[in-house]
Amino acid sequence: MLEGEIYEWLNNYGIPVPDFKLFELNANINVDFYPVALKIQSPKVIHKSDVGGVITDIKNSDELKTAQQTIIENLNNHGILLDKDDKLIVTKMYKGIELFFGIVNDKVFEKVIVFGTGGIFVEVYKDVCFIDSEAADAEIKNAILQTKISELFTKGFRGLTYDINLIVDFVKKLQKLEVSELDFNPVILTGNKLTVVDARVKFDEVKNTHKALKYSPRIFKPQRTAIIGVSGNPEKVGYALAENTLDNDNVYFVNPKLNSLLGKKVYQTIKDLPEIDTALIAISTAQMKDTIEQLVTKGVKNVIIITAGFKEAGQDERFLTNLADEYNINIIGPNCFGIFSEGMNLTFGTNDIKSGEVNFFSQSGAIISELMDKAAFENIGFENIISVGNMADIDFADLINSYEGTNVINLYVEGIENGKNLLRAIRKSKSLIKIVKAGKTKAAQKAAFSHTGNLSGNYEMFVGLMKSVGVKMLNDTNGLIYLYNFEKVIIVTNAGGAGTVMSDLISNRLYELTPDNLNKLNSILPFNWSKNNPIDIIGDAVHERYLQTLKLVDDFNADAIYIIVTPQLITNPEKVSEIFVNNTFKTKVFPILLGGELIEEAKNTLRKNKIIFFEELNEAVSFL
Amino acid sequence: MLEGEIYEWLNNYGIPVPDFKLFELNANINVDFYPVALKIQSPKVIHKSDVGGVITDIKNSDELKTAQQTIIENLNNHGILLDKDDKLIVTKMYKGIELFFGIVNDKVFEKVIVFGTGGIFVEVYKDVCFIDSEAADAEIKNAILQTKISELFTKGFRGLTYDINLIVDFVKKLQKLEVSELDFNPVILTGNKLTVVDARVKFDEVKNTHKALKYSPRIFKPQRTAIIGVSGNPEKVGYALAENTLDNDNVYFVNPKLNSLLGKKVYQTIKDLPEIDTALIAISTAQMKDTIEQLVTKGVKNVIIITAGFKEAGQDERFLTNLADEYNINIIGPNCFGIFSEGMNLTFGTNDIKSGEVNFFSQSGAIISELMDKAAFENIGFENIISVGNMADIDFADLINSYEGTNVINLYVEGIENGKNLLRAIRKSKSLIKIVKAGKTKAAQKAAFSHTGNLSGNYEMFVGLMKSVGVKMLNDTNGLIYLYNFEKVIIVTNAGGAGTVMSDLISNRLYELTPDNLNKLNSILPFNWSKNNPIDIIGDAVHERYLQTLKLVDDFNADAIYIIVTPQLITNPEKVSEIFVNNTFKTKVFPILLGGELIEEAKNTLRKNKIIFFEELNEAVSFL
Repeated sequence: MLEGEIYEWLNNYGIPVPDFKLFELNANINVDFYPVALKIQSPKVIHKSDVGGVITDIKNSDELKTAQQTIIENLNNHGILLDKDDKLIVTKMYKGIELFFGIVNDKVFEKVIVFGTGGIFVEVYKDVCFIDSEAADAEIKNAILQTKISELFTKGFRGLTYDINLIVDFVKKLQKLEVSELDFNPVILTGNKLTVVDARVKFDEVKNTHKALKYSPRIFKPQRTAIIGVSGNPEKVGYALAENTLDNDNVYFVNPKLNSLLGKKVYQTIKDLPEIDTALIAISTAQMKDTIEQLVTKGVKNVIIITAGFKEAGQDERFLTNLADEYNINIIGPNCFGIFSEGMNLTFGTNDIKSGEVNFFSQSGAIISELMDKAAFENIGFENIISVGNMADIDFADLINSYEGTNVINLYVEGIENGKNLLRAIRKSKSLIKIVKAGKTKAAQKAAFSHTGNLSGNYEMFVGLMKSVGVKMLNDTNGLIYLYNFEKVIIVTNAGGAGTVMSDLISNRLYELTPDNLNKLNSILPFNWSKNNPIDIIGDAVHERYLQTLKLVDDFNADAIYIIVTPQLITNPEKVSEIFVNNTFKTKVFPILLGGELIEEAKNTLRKNKIIFFEELNEAVSFL
Repeated sequence: MLEGEIYEWLNNYGIPVPDFKLFELNANINVDFYPVALKIQSPKVIHKSDVGGVITDIKNSDELKTAQQTIIENLNNHGILLDKDDKLIVTKMYKGIELFFGIVNDKVFEKVIVFGTGGIFVEVYKDVCFIDSEAADAEIKNAILQTKISELFTKGFRGLTYDINLIVDFVKKLQKLEVSELDFNPVILTGNKLTVVDARVKFDEVKNTHKALKYSPRIFKPQRTAIIGVSGNPEKVGYALAENTLDNDNVYFVNPKLNSLLGKKVYQTIKDLPEIDTALIAISTAQMKDTIEQLVTKGVKNVIIITAGFKEAGQDERFLTNLADEYNINIIGPNCFGIFSEGMNLTFGTNDIKSGEVNFFSQSGAIISELMDKAAFENIGFENIISVGNMADIDFADLINSYEGTNVINLYVEGIENGKNLLRAIRKSKSLIKIVKAGKTKAAQKAAFSHTGNLSGNYEMFVGLMKSVGVKMLNDTNGLIYLYNFEKVIIVTNAGGAGTVMSDLISNRLYELTPDNLNKLNSILPFNWSKNNPIDIIGDAVHERYLQTLKLVDDFNADAIYIIVTPQLITNPEKVSEIFVNNTFKTKVFPILLGGELIEEAKNTLRKNKIIFFEELNEAVSFL
């Protein structure tokens, strides 16, 4: 499409373009709007500037006529033969703030709008945000506010303020444009108007082969489960699966070569089984299709495939997707670690796992294994753990869409294939969703690829879209076993330095002490306490001072209190740790024990009493 | 200074200014350079634009004459009475890339040059760097390369490349300018030329009261030490100090009320002491001056003041600075935690501390206490630990300047007063210097203030200047007990997910496997290993596979190898941990044990054998 055609087409969509006028090459040209740029418009000229086909800053008709001759000469000199189809276009020049708008068709998120700083700084600052084509006003605003240039709308700029809705409305127009790719750079912002002054558009066909979003709450409700491929060899997954479910009468074992295992009956064939709703499969890839079809005759609704050697090993696994569609069943995996739901541990991880409120869906089995073990240590319970594996059928979006509760959902994501569905599911969800996304750096993307066979998409696009839709992005996988979401945090410390570092980590979530709070603290603390949050109760704090302070701040209506204990001359960490054993507080309280040998005993006390505590400041904020 | 005067003055320093010409108000004005801007130049008009005193984009003499009339009318309409001292200035307008140059006189770093993106985006992107007025070429370049706009010099821009030396030379001119404050915004970059087109300058008097840099290696050589204020009360600092030095015959105790303490003789007065070179003081503030003057008669050279209640409590401590000058002694503190030097523990921290190679100077006693304890646990030894306290005399700069060795120096800095000296000392130092700087966020600045009585300066300026001078900035205080500096790191893992996260943390330091490395690894690892660093040796790795892999990669000439061990079905963490006990490697090897109960035993094995290991990925990279 030539420049003039693009402008006419954009006008139809209500997108403001510059004043412009087309002329024959040798016409007597003049316009009634100055300053202007004069450009050649010809399918034979792709890069106009390179052949002298653009002249800018033209102030009057004399300059315009000179420019006309110059351009025609320049093109002649470059050996470009013009004919009567070629034209000259005059466009009005605008001064103002240069913005960027674009449309991309992403492999993962399909159509996405890009907005940010335009002009020559697009590449240098990459100050852009990503907006889903289905985002409504609030979500669009969330995205815009992720750019630095959005200060134009929040703080104003050199005395002028601009209305963010100008951008929102423009984005909504772009959401409706049917193009495969588009670049507006720059779009000039002046006062309360946006004008596109340079545009490139592509109309390639876009094919979206993404599957529909699933709604199937029964994923989380395994009632009667068969394990296909239990094993008597303690080094095999099939043994660990059997061990973890040994005491559950609603779990049946299947292996043609065994009669019993660990004292429990083993069925030789699937035919022999009673009706089941869930199957956990750990047999070879070759038998997979037959096995699933037999299971369907037993009423199975959920199939969890532990077996590896599919996509991640270069093998086709689309037949699994097809089976799920054909029989209306849910397939989790393949190449997964299993699930924990309804208190039933269908994983081959630790069997020291308890029911609770945390939902954790992960693309890495190893991270599930590590965090299950850590959670057991910290006495944290789960509502659902789902290892999604290769996501041949059920993916993160389906899980979020099918979860009917309101508890926090934590995700560990390496790479996804269907971003639109994930956004749709999150928009509908009643849960706070937290995500750790691997693949930040190029190096990490490579590692993730060889790990799961999934491509990590553009990290910034993923993070930007997720934040706009209300997801909380975390940096540390350790945060994924916690439910917490704190906005007002108090720090009590006997070490000013550690308090300072912790402030840095928490930054804008520090609870601000009121004058009344300060008076109360003044009455119990030594004169040289910090008069501030972090509440530095000074290096000579004994456990009574910790306890008094804690009882006081417990009434301050903060969301959480971190208590930093460092080995100091007089502080007895062991006695401080007993405070947490012997008292209960209204506010969530987290001890942080820093140091080595001198605090080992205190740590053991907390461990023994199953009290969550931290040994590093970083770890303590992993879920914030 | 009026605009025309500034341009003339800048010209004297070889700083390029625009073509300009001054005219009487009613002169017949014309110039031979267009386009131009016309501006009123009058001491009565501060904000020219607000009163219509500026007209830009003037293309010819007709427009210029119209502009002349318009400006005079505008000023009349604003009630500004002009007289014959007032003039009109015509300046040529330039098109190009808008840069920013400035000079500030910082409280801490004194004269500092600022360079970055100019024009309307200065405030939005704050893409600037800080350059010390004493920096030479290489250091100036380091600073420039910290800006994003420096891509102009490294990558070029829209086909044009620019020479970084243009900026370096300009900065060197600014280093010579004697002003208190200066703003050039913008400076226009076109091809190979810079032109200042808007300038503001201030010539206030600048007073630098900063003390001279000290060189005194004896700080690190306490030979015969007296402790003034030992105590029999186990809850007092004077007791801990005595306990830590009990067995050292070159340490003498002083307390008028004691004859002996813990079986060791106590001197009643300083007079009774033999000759000493070092004194450690833990008595009240009131006696401080007398005590130091008495100590001088005993030949003391280093005075370490533990006692608090000086600047941090609002008390004047300048008398200490004066005493240090008058008697040519070193005073460390007050309000400090003591020092560890020459294997002598003159702190009140743990006495489980050993000699080694780490130098650690810190503004927080609590962080020293915590890290000494952690180091003991990890079997790490120190060359020098210095708690600088309030830095009444000896500060970080003096310590670096006085240290004659070549080992790494780690600093924990909250706020400093004399930045120029610190930069000078670092430039001369033969050591790699690593710094954790607290006070990143506004919240943390507040905490640091109430903690040490020091103001944290501008965090970005501190970090920028330090990086330019070759300092390695760390984010995590845990990194401060390590010597390491690794550029090529290998990760071996049995968990792809953890490997991915670790890649993110290490990013550009990942060692790249050669084809030969790959062949060797292929020959010992299962087919589905990652073929990549992180080397994912797969979830079913047993300890033999860990050992084989380790032996192989030990020959790859990386700087360090991280071995991630997660609890998996078949991996026995306990047996993996024994690898580190029973083998030695040429490359530095760090086990990282992730999980909870299932790896406790493995951790205990490593602890028992004093092998450094990590329990968190974040912690493992704290010194990188």
